Amino acid sequence: MPSKELGGAGLRGQSAGSTALCTVGQSGTGLTYRGYDITDLANNAQFEEVAHLLLRGHLPNQQELDTYKTHLLNLRGLPQPLKHALELIPADAHPMDVMRTGCSFLGNLEQEDDFSQQLTATERLLALFPAMICYWYRFSHDGVRVDTEDQSQDSIGGYFLKLLTDKEPSELHKQVMHCSLILYAEHEFNASTFTARVCASTLSDLHSCITGAIGTLRGPLHGGANEAAMEMIENWQTPEEAEANIMQMLENKDKIMGFGHAIYRESDPRNALIKRWSEELSKAVGDTHLYAVSERVESVMKREKGLFCNADFFHASAYHFMDIPTKLFTPIFVMSRLTGWAAHVFEQRENNRIIRPSADYTGPEHQEWVPIEQR
Amino acid sequence: MPSKELGGAGLRGQSAGSTALCTVGQSGTGLTYRGYDITDLANNAQFEEVAHLLLRGHLPNQQELDTYKTHLLNLRGLPQPLKHALELIPADAHPMDVMRTGCSFLGNLEQEDDFSQQLTATERLLALFPAMICYWYRFSHDGVRVDTEDQSQDSIGGYFLKLLTDKEPSELHKQVMHCSLILYAEHEFNASTFTARVCASTLSDLHSCITGAIGTLRGPLHGGANEAAMEMIENWQTPEEAEANIMQMLENKDKIMGFGHAIYRESDPRNALIKRWSEELSKAVGDTHLYAVSERVESVMKREKGLFCNADFFHASAYHFMDIPTKLFTPIFVMSRLTGWAAHVFEQRENNRIIRPSADYTGPEHQEWVPIEQR
Repeated sequence: MPSKELGGAGLRGQSAGSTALCTVGQSGTGLTYRGYDITDLANNAQFEEVAHLLLRGHLPNQQELDTYKTHLLNLRGLPQPLKHALELIPADAHPMDVMRTGCSFLGNLEQEDDFSQQLTATERLLALFPAMICYWYRFSHDGVRVDTEDQSQDSIGGYFLKLLTDKEPSELHKQVMHCSLILYAEHEFNASTFTARVCASTLSDLHSCITGAIGTLRGPLHGGANEAAMEMIENWQTPEEAEANIMQMLENKDKIMGFGHAIYRESDPRNALIKRWSEELSKAVGDTHLYAVSERVESVMKREKGLFCNADFFHASAYHFMDIPTKLFTPIFVMSRLTGWAAHVFEQRENNRIIRPSADYTGPEHQEWVPIEQR
Repeated sequence: MPSKELGGAGLRGQSAGSTALCTVGQSGTGLTYRGYDITDLANNAQFEEVAHLLLRGHLPNQQELDTYKTHLLNLRGLPQPLKHALELIPADAHPMDVMRTGCSFLGNLEQEDDFSQQLTATERLLALFPAMICYWYRFSHDGVRVDTEDQSQDSIGGYFLKLLTDKEPSELHKQVMHCSLILYAEHEFNASTFTARVCASTLSDLHSCITGAIGTLRGPLHGGANEAAMEMIENWQTPEEAEANIMQMLENKDKIMGFGHAIYRESDPRNALIKRWSEELSKAVGDTHLYAVSERVESVMKREKGLFCNADFFHASAYHFMDIPTKLFTPIFVMSRLTGWAAHVFEQRENNRIIRPSADYTGPEHQEWVPIEQR
C-alpha cells in the first residue's frame, strides 16, 4: 500500500498495454486468470493446472496434467556450477538476492538463444526455483547439500516442502501449497510483472526478464508484505495484546502491512481463500494464539480504518504453521509468480513496441560550461 | 529503433514521472545532463567528472575530482567469492548475462541495508564493473586471472583497457574512453532506466535495480545496437561494397542497426562526438577501409531514408580500432550508464509512488469451471 504522503503518479490508472491473462477488480469475485475466477481455481485446481493454463493457454485434462507434472519433475536437478555458485553465497544474504542471482546465473548456463525456447526456459525455472532456494538455505544454514533431484513429490509445493524440511509433507500441507501458489500466480500489470514486460520490450532474453521481476518483487511495497505481517503478528501472545498494539500503531500512523490494495477497493478475493487454510492449519498444529491474533487484527483494521486484508496477511500465519522460515515467504511468491511473469513476457513479445515513456523535466536550465580550473 | 509493423503503445510520449537529470531533444545540441550540454561535457570532461555530476549533483573542482578518482581507485578489487562465481561461468555465456549475474551476486555479499548506503553501493559498482567483465573474459577465454586491484590507471576507461589487454593504454585510447563513457552515461526514461525506476518504486535495493536495468539494456532494441552495427560493417571491404549491400538490405526491408531514434527527430548529438574519435583512431591504427565504409553507410542512409546515425553507429568502429572484442561493447555501456541508472534510483526514492499501470483486457469473458475429469 503506497503511502499517501508520497508524490509521483506511478502511472496509476494509465494503460500501459493490453493483456489477455488477467483481470483485477473487474468481474467475478475480483480476480480472473484467462477468464477463470480465482475462487474456482484456488478451491479446485492444483498449481500445475494453473501453470498450464497461464503458460500453455488452457486448463489441462487429466492426461495432460499427468504428462505436465512428469515433465516438470524430470526438469529438476540443479546444474553443478549453479550449485557451486549457491554455495558461495553466505547465510546472511537476503533470500530474494539468492533467487535473483540463481535465476541470472542459470541464464549463463542455459541461455535462451531465441524465442522459440521461451516455454522450455520458463518450465526449467519452474522446476528449479524450489531447489535453488532450498539448496542455498540448507547448505548455508545447516551445511547440508539437499538432493535436488528428489522425485518423491510430484507437485512443486510438495517438492519445496520436502527439500526444506527433509520430511514427507502432509496432504494438508501440499493442499495449502497448491492454493497459495495459485493465489500468487498472476496479477496483471503489478510492478514486478511490468518490469518483466519493460525488459521483454527490448527483446531481451527470458532470464533477464525474470531476474528483473524478482528484483522488483523484493521491495517491501510489493512482495515483502507477508514477511512484514509475520514479523508484526509474532510479537503478540493474545488478541487483546494485538488489539492494544494495533490501536497504538494506528495512533502513531505506523504502516501496517498486509492491508489494503492499489486496485481492490472493497476486499481482496484471495484473502478468504488463504484464511480458510490458515484456520485449518491452526487447528492441525494446536496453535493457541496466532490465528486468533490474526483474526483480531483483521477486525480491528476493518473497524478502525475500513481496511481489508490483502492476499498477504493470512499467508503469514499459514506459512508459519507449516514451519516455513519467515525469510523464505517471498521466494515462494517467486516460484508461483514466475508463471504470470513469463506469460506476460510471451504476450509482450507477440505484439511488441519498446516501452519508453517520457519524463517531465524539473532540473536546471542551460548551464554554462566552466573549465575545471575555474570551478 | 522499433519496427513500425509492431503494435502496442509502449507509453510513447506519456509522462511516467519527473526528473531533474536529463533532457533529450529539448535544448542545446539535444542532450543535457543536469543542464550541461553533452557537447561541452564530451569535449572537455573526464568520465569521472560526469559521474560526480550525476551521482553527487555537481561538477567537481580539481581537488574534488582528484579525491573522487582516488576514492574509486581504492574501491577496486573483486571479493574472492565473486571471482570464484565468475570463474564458474563458461566462455560462451553472453557477456551481458555475466554483468547481470556479477552485479546480482555482489548484492549477496555487500547488501545495501538501507538507502543511506545508496551512494556507497553505486560507487562500489562503478569501481568494479570493469573488473567483473574483464575477470570473467580473461579467465574464460585465456585462462588468466587478471589483477583486479591494478592501480596503474586512474580512470575507469583506462582500467578497463588495461585489464582487457594487459597493456598500458595510450593517451588517445584513454581520451576516447572518457568521451564514450560520457556519451552513454544518461538518457532520461529509456527502457533500462525506466526498469531501474520501476524496481526502485517498490523500495527494493540498489543491486536489484541495477541488475534489472542490465537485463533490459541487453535487448537488441536497446544496448545491443553497436554490436549489431559492428557485425554488419565488418563484412564489407570497400565503401562501394557497403553501398551495394546497404541498398540491397533496404530493398529487402532488413533492419539496419545504429540509425534513427525513438526521441531525436533530426540527429543524435552524440554521433558527431564519437565520429570524430573514430576518425582519429582510424588514422592512428592505419585503417584502410572500416572508417570509410562507416562514412559511406552514413551517407547512403541519409540519402535513401533520411535517417541519421545514433550514438551507436560510430561507436562500433571506434571500439573496434581499440581492439575491444565486439561482444564486450554492451558491457562498456553498462559501466557508463550505471551512473544514470543510479541517479534515477536516488531520484525515484526521494519522491516515490509504486509504479503500477493498468492494462486493457483483451482475454476471454467469464469461463465456467469444469472439473478435470470432465475436460
